[in-house]
Formats: sequence, C-alpha cells, structure tokens
Amino acid sequence: MLPESQQQIQLASRPEGTPTNANFHYKKVNVPQPSEREVLVKTLYLSVDPYMRGRMSDAKSYVEPFQLHEPLMGGAVGEVVESKSEQFQKGDFVVGMLPWQEYSIATEQQVRTIDPNVAPISTHLGILGLTGLTAYFGLLDIGQPKEGETVVVSGAAGAVGSVVGQIAKIKGARVVGIAGSDEKVSYLTETLGFDQGINYKTTDNIYASLKEACPNGIDVYFENVGGEIGDAALSLLNKHARIPVCGAISSYNKTDRDLGPRVQTRLIKSSALMKGFVVNDYNERFKEGATQLGQWLSEGKLSYEETITEGLDNVTDAFLGLFQGKNIGKQLVKIADPTK
Amino acid sequence: MLPESQQQIQLASRPEGTPTNANFHYKKVNVPQPSEREVLVKTLYLSVDPYMRGRMSDAKSYVEPFQLHEPLMGGAVGEVVESKSEQFQKGDFVVGMLPWQEYSIATEQQVRTIDPNVAPISTHLGILGLTGLTAYFGLLDIGQPKEGETVVVSGAAGAVGSVVGQIAKIKGARVVGIAGSDEKVSYLTETLGFDQGINYKTTDNIYASLKEACPNGIDVYFENVGGEIGDAALSLLNKHARIPVCGAISSYNKTDRDLGPRVQTRLIKSSALMKGFVVNDYNERFKEGATQLGQWLSEGKLSYEETITEGLDNVTDAFLGLFQGKNIGKQLVKIADPTK
Repeated sequence: MLPESQQQIQLASRPEGTPTNANFHYKKVNVPQPSEREVLVKTLYLSVDPYMRGRMSDAKSYVEPFQLHEPLMGGAVGEVVESKSEQFQKGDFVVGMLPWQEYSIATEQQVRTIDPNVAPISTHLGILGLTGLTAYFGLLDIGQPKEGETVVVSGAAGAVGSVVGQIAKIKGARVVGIAGSDEKVSYLTETLGFDQGINYKTTDNIYASLKEACPNGIDVYFENVGGEIGDAALSLLNKHARIPVCGAISSYNKTDRDLGPRVQTRLIKSSALMKGFVVNDYNERFKEGATQLGQWLSEGKLSYEETITEGLDNVTDAFLGLFQGKNIGKQLVKIADPTK
Repeated sequence: MLPESQQQIQLASRPEGTPTNANFHYKKVNVPQPSEREVLVKTLYLSVDPYMRGRMSDAKSYVEPFQLHEPLMGGAVGEVVESKSEQFQKGDFVVGMLPWQEYSIATEQQVRTIDPNVAPISTHLGILGLTGLTAYFGLLDIGQPKEGETVVVSGAAGAVGSVVGQIAKIKGARVVGIAGSDEKVSYLTETLGFDQGINYKTTDNIYASLKEACPNGIDVYFENVGGEIGDAALSLLNKHARIPVCGAISSYNKTDRDLGPRVQTRLIKSSALMKGFVVNDYNERFKEGATQLGQWLSEGKLSYEETITEGLDNVTDAFLGLFQGKNIGKQLVKIADPTK
C-alpha cells in the first residue's frame, strides 16, 4: 500500500558561496499517479554530486539551473512499484534522473532497467554509471595514458578520481593521486594500487610534493579540483601532456574571482592539450564504456568504495559533505530498501 | 672580395621585464671560413619574432635559452657566397636558422635552398616559412574551423595572426581580428577580408566589444596574446570550442605573476579544447603545409605584409618594436642586397 503523501527536497534559495541547509527545504507533496506509458518509481538510492552545485546557481552552464521552489534532481536508482508502460514491470529496478523525493513518475525515456544480479544496484550510480563513464571517457579519450607514463589525478579518492587512477593502472601508467586525508591516501595506495598518494592538506608546498612524486614529470593530469593543486600540476607538464578537465571543486563555492597563473605559456612550453568535458559528450559511446567497465569489474581489476548515508532527511547533509571531502568513493544516500 | 671582419649581435644580459638595447651588444668578429660540407652564407634578411624573448630568459622552455655573450640566432634568408658542399652552389639562396651577423657558416643540415623565382625570397621567413606554417597547422590541426563558425584571432595584424584569419576565411568561417591600432584594423577588414576588427587599445571593455562582434559566440579562438584579451575570449566560447595557443605576447615581459581567471570551469562549461603548440610539432608535415600555402598564395587567396627595417644596426630595435606592436605583418630586417 503506497502512502498518499511524501517529502520532496526543493531549492529554497540560491547559495552564495558554500551552500548550507538553509538553501533547501523539505515539502510535503502528494505521491503522484502514473499516466499511460509512465511508471511510478520508489527511490532506493540517490546520487549526490559536486556538479549539482553549478545547477544551484543561476549562471549559464552545460545544464539548466535548478528552479527555486522546485525539487532538486539527480541520478537515482529505484524500483518500479506501478507500471502503465509495456516496457517496465512492477518490481523492475531502474536508473535515471529523478527528483529528490520518495516516489516519482518516470516516462519510458527517463529511466532504464538494470539487472540486480550482475552487480549491486547502487553501482549503477557509481562505477557502472555516469561516474564510471566520466572517468572512462575523460581518461581514455582525452588523457590517453600510455604504458610507463605518469598520470596524476586530483580528487583521487572521490567517485571519479578513484576510477580514473585504476584505469590508468590497467593501462600501465604510473599513477599519483592527490587527496585530502591520510586515510584517503592509504586507500589509494593500499586498496586501489596507486603508486603514490599525496595528502594536500598536510603538505607545505603542493608543487614540491608533486614534483618529488613525479620525478619524470606529468604526462596526464586528470583535473577534478582546480585551484592551487591544478596550478602545481600545470607547472610540471611533460611535452605533449594531456589534461582532461572534469571538475574544479575548489572553485564551486568561491564568491570572489578564481584567479591563478594564466595557462597559455605553460601549454605552449609543453605543447599540452587541456580539454573540458562532461560525460554527456560521450552519449553515443555509453554502451562501449559500460561494457568495458563491467568487464573490468567482473575480472576484479576495478574496485570501488561507496559512502552511504541513510535517509531522505540526510540528503542535503550528504551533498554538503562533498565540499568538505567527507566521502571516500561514491557518495550515495539510501532512501529505502527494495520491496520484499 | 669578402671582408675579414664583421659585426655580430650578442646577448649582453638577460632582460628583466621588457628588453632594451642595453641587453644586447655588437661585437666585431672574424668572417669565418667554411670547412668541408659547409657553406659560407651572406645574410640577406633576418626574422625577428616574439618567441625569441623566451630564449633570452634562463627558464626552461621548448627551446634552449640563448647563451650570454654568444650571438643571438633566428630565421634567416641568405646567399651562398662560398661552398665546400656538393649540395650548394655559390649564388644559391638559402633559408635556415642563423646567427645575427653578416656572414655565417652553415652545415648542410642547417639551411635549405629556396627558389627566388616562385616568390620573393623574404616570404620564406614569413608566409611561406615558419610563420605561415605556424598559422596553417595551429588553425587547421587544432582549431579546425568549419564553414559558418566564428573564428577570433588575437594579434591579428601580426605575422601569424594575419595568415590565420585569411585561412579561416578560405575555410568559410566568419573572422574577427583583434589588433592594436585603427590602421591595423583597417588592414584586417579592407585588405585581408576579415569580417570585423577590434582595436583593443581604444575599447573600454574588450569583453563587451568581443561579445558584440561575436553574436553567435566563439567557436575557434586563436591565441597569440593572452592576458585580458584571452580572458575575454575564453568567456565567450561555444560548446566544443577550440583554442590553439600559439603565443601570449602580453605576458612575455611581465615581471610579476601573470594572473587571470582560472580556465577550468570555462573549459568544462563548453567542453572546450585548449592546446599549446610550436611549429616544430609539425615538422613531418611541413611539406604539406608549404605546398598548400604556396598554392593559395599563387591563386591570390592569401596576401601578406612585411615590415622591413634596414641594416644590422637596427635589428635590436626591430625586435623591441614587436612588443610595442610597431609591425604590420611579418617584421624583417634587411641586412644586405644579393650579390650582383
């Protein structure tokens, strides 16, 4: 028996600088009814991701801003609890972009079915989902690491970074990860097989630490962080270095201008390539990426970590925690168990 | 009859900030004698180029620094006046990298013969030489302009920029050039066929001027200048924009750090590609580029301007003038007439 009403998380105000819980409000709304060719999905896991910070501002970006007093949305895994579509059956597990609430209507285009027997359903928000694909295409299409090259990853213990470093290892590169705690650094080197890790919070001079960790210079710098970490990496590029630019989390909450050394002369000196991307640039190749990631996972060549927060009440805290580096691996929020 | 001695221009001290004549000295040296498989070349034209500023500093770059109290070197066209090589005859015109002096020894690898009947010999330092090739490969390999796209070129009236804009026109793009005087802007639009020109020295707000000149955004930004002009262009990128980074002349003489808005989020928002390069990256394709440039030139599709200063005494002034934007098109120094 489904409830009649539910909680929905809305954007209450646009954050200035670092978001706080005051930017969100919980609103009681009805559980909707599906129309023809729609399904009702019970939310099981929500993904919270740094890129969502951008959508909370009003500025033009690669995705539309969230609207005030409308629900926030993001990647979600759920269970079909009512179907008026021939493509879905009650009990199917699905993944797609859904609002931050307990029950949602989805069209046939909005979600797709996932197989719970291949890997845990939550992995479709992480290593087998857009996170894994982000790492896969950014590293392999832009970074193109070659055997013996040095690959540096910032935000290395995060959802994307941890996959990037492992794929670089599969490709035979020497991998250095930059992260924000000793625990994360141990995770990189001991669990994920990175060659070296740097805790940027305890180093006096990130440039010197990075230089020491990369005696042969940097061939690929996978950028998740920006700021002074990015500046340092860009000072150590080898000839023909490649820089996939995936994120710049250090800048997302800045209220003043994000100023640093201009990159032009650095790029010229090393004939380096720097390319921004979003995973949707690779829409047409998702199947290729997902297949390869699934294969590596089944072969034990990739491991992953999930930081799982429990309950819709804690979604915003989980999101805010991303900017404090609280998560290791993929940050998820478990909203409900599957129906028995 | 050759003279016994000649003047040579040496680097007297490394410039701090903007170079001055005090950084150079003229030294009387002997006219050298060629050994086996060498030629003696009489210098006819010297090329002075902004990139040479980098070689005057001690910092690591893509080419070795000039040595103190050693001659400066650069692109030169000359005439073989004595040959001990079977590959060259007295009277041949040659191009290569030569010291800033009146007579030089060259090995067989150091120079190659040019045909004075195809185009004026000076063009082998400009539109048919490394300058033209720089424009050709940077624009076509990295920028890849498509018909109807908007291409913006900074340093547009300079040696490289003026060729870039013309090739972009050949490829059917809408071309906007940024230059530093009304005379240069007229040259761009009236002589070279650019669609629009901006005089950055008389505009209050380069961002606003560029935005007005590019109502459909920027698809390719060919970077010669850096600084605030580059910042403005990077704020107006379309999705999948490309930025060949050829130079950053505004920064070459800076003594403080060259700070500007970090580019990471801008590159992500537009999935843009930014790539530094030097013409030697394309060594293996020089023949292709030179052939195409020669064909366009003979078809009247490319025009070029040379700013020619006279005499070895004025080489350093010609070089220093580059940073004041004194030249239109290629800055050359004519050292001598060919032997009658």
